Amino acid sequence: MPITERNTRIRFGRILLILLAMLMPAGIRADAKTDPLPSWNDGAAKESIVRFVAEVTKEGGPNYVQPGDRIATFDQDGTTWVSHPLYAQAVFALDRIRELAPNHPEWKNEEPFKSVIAGDREAMAKFGESDWEIIIAATHTGMSTGDFLEIVNKWLSTAKDSRWHRPYTELVYQPMIEVMEYLRANGFRTYIVTGGGQEFVRVYSEHVYGVPPEQVVGSSVLTKYEYTDGKPVLLREPKVFFIDDKAGKAIGINLFIGKRPYAAFGNSTGDREMLEWTQAGGGARLMMLVYHDDAVREYAYGPAGGLPDTNVGTFSQALMDEAKKNGWVIISMKNDWKRIFKFEE
Amino acid sequence: MPITERNTRIRFGRILLILLAMLMPAGIRADAKTDPLPSWNDGAAKESIVRFVAEVTKEGGPNYVQPGDRIATFDQDGTTWVSHPLYAQAVFALDRIRELAPNHPEWKNEEPFKSVIAGDREAMAKFGESDWEIIIAATHTGMSTGDFLEIVNKWLSTAKDSRWHRPYTELVYQPMIEVMEYLRANGFRTYIVTGGGQEFVRVYSEHVYGVPPEQVVGSSVLTKYEYTDGKPVLLREPKVFFIDDKAGKAIGINLFIGKRPYAAFGNSTGDREMLEWTQAGGGARLMMLVYHDDAVREYAYGPAGGLPDTNVGTFSQALMDEAKKNGWVIISMKNDWKRIFKFEE
Repeated sequence: MPITERNTRIRFGRILLILLAMLMPAGIRADAKTDPLPSWNDGAAKESIVRFVAEVTKEGGPNYVQPGDRIATFDQDGTTWVSHPLYAQAVFALDRIRELAPNHPEWKNEEPFKSVIAGDREAMAKFGESDWEIIIAATHTGMSTGDFLEIVNKWLSTAKDSRWHRPYTELVYQPMIEVMEYLRANGFRTYIVTGGGQEFVRVYSEHVYGVPPEQVVGSSVLTKYEYTDGKPVLLREPKVFFIDDKAGKAIGINLFIGKRPYAAFGNSTGDREMLEWTQAGGGARLMMLVYHDDAVREYAYGPAGGLPDTNVGTFSQALMDEAKKNGWVIISMKNDWKRIFKFEE
Repeated sequence: MPITERNTRIRFGRILLILLAMLMPAGIRADAKTDPLPSWNDGAAKESIVRFVAEVTKEGGPNYVQPGDRIATFDQDGTTWVSHPLYAQAVFALDRIRELAPNHPEWKNEEPFKSVIAGDREAMAKFGESDWEIIIAATHTGMSTGDFLEIVNKWLSTAKDSRWHRPYTELVYQPMIEVMEYLRANGFRTYIVTGGGQEFVRVYSEHVYGVPPEQVVGSSVLTKYEYTDGKPVLLREPKVFFIDDKAGKAIGINLFIGKRPYAAFGNSTGDREMLEWTQAGGGARLMMLVYHDDAVREYAYGPAGGLPDTNVGTFSQALMDEAKKNGWVIISMKNDWKRIFKFEE
């Protein structure tokens, strides 16, 4: 072979390698050289994620999963972002009551509005389900879906959490973002499956989590098709349509996705059925629960493991027992996460 | 430049072109050389599809649409497959009644079962909504979601249409399959948005339409999370959860997709709101209605244009008038389609 021809072949080989590398998802490329989960400490939790991904993507392996079936579902509040001392969406609702109060002078004498307007924290802490229903109806319904998205968007751009003084959309857990990206780089589609409002989360899911609106499953109100100035609108009505919590998470996954997840991530009793439903599919499945045991960097609550009890994202001892029995992996925020937020950098 | 180096560069250029071509979706490649819609006759309907695709995919153009937003929704019955003389799912229900009849001796004396078992066509033709509700409850509920999928699958593999003597899944309109493939090749995601049962259509949507289960929006019953032998199941209950028809189609699109379609295809008054909702997004949008005017090759019904009236997929004169007023494109099966079914080849 003349030397020039050999050179050409060598060059061709190099070019082909470069182009093939361009064809591969970024995460797979990075995987070989760099850690796809840099915010995780080495340990059982991190290992279980890496092992699971290796198993389901190994072609010809016993647990190989077709890319179209690679579904991973993530609870949101307490799993992918901070939910204490109150769910961000609840803060939105309370802020909105105060904003709307001037148009509703009667609220000054009507509970639960009265306590919200007065900023009576003690009274608000005691709000029951019916109080929240009234608050949600007054703040989340009566407008078109388009107007609601704008209202949420505006709030998100100005509201700040009282502890970190940052927008709520910055209070996402960097280690979980890395898991989402790692899974997507390995052919998974990542879904948010939240007890929170579907339309609320859809406003920011794409830019915060890289999850497009159609991959957000959540709770919803009824909407009504109407015409405004001859143009159709969907009016949000003060009536619950679907509650995507507890058994509702398994039901919602079947309803909206129609495929069983291979990986599911939660943090509270509201996620139990989602993890059970995932595991019941058999084969290699990954079920993980974020355990809030870091009072210094975030919050610590249980009551599992003797941590303080809470109404927001309860992790009961019964859930911990079921997790151990079923081999679900507990993520200790304190021990498994090198850092919690991106802004810690 | 030495001649060998020039050769290398030329070769490199060729290789790059070949590899770039490999990166492009098949349809775009084919587009330049072959007709992506070979079952369509040249005419306004075909042109409107090609022009729409060119507009929304033209980078830098005034109507360019980001790939993530390229959503196209298709009604099923009468739009992508035959729905006359009866919806396939209704035939499934009637067949199922006959199959289950030996376990229900009481049905012999109870309507609507009695007429179904006796094969009384005249009586069945007069069935109202409440009769169908009883039939759907008896045939579509009371089992787990998994068992239901198996029952439908088994029926599909044996049942045959009485006119063509072929499985229902072969009675799909080849021109519409071509539109779906053409749109997907141009970055669109194609959804089925059907008044029919979501779980029913999901059984075959992938292999018949290339539409995965998570892109099927349809009507559904309530499901209940239960345990059978310690394993969770979703039990289908005899209670309607969502009717994805008429205004329900716009509501369902917002609920399940959370994005407004850029193209929508229907064939009856049940699709009116879906097309309105699509068009209301502004910019380049494609709204099309299949008009069944081919009594020889398929069926002819209206009553628009003076065709025979029908209860199955009514195309009213009011819908035709609205279509003309709004610039929705009518697809004449007789004139616009070179062939109707793939098996005509």
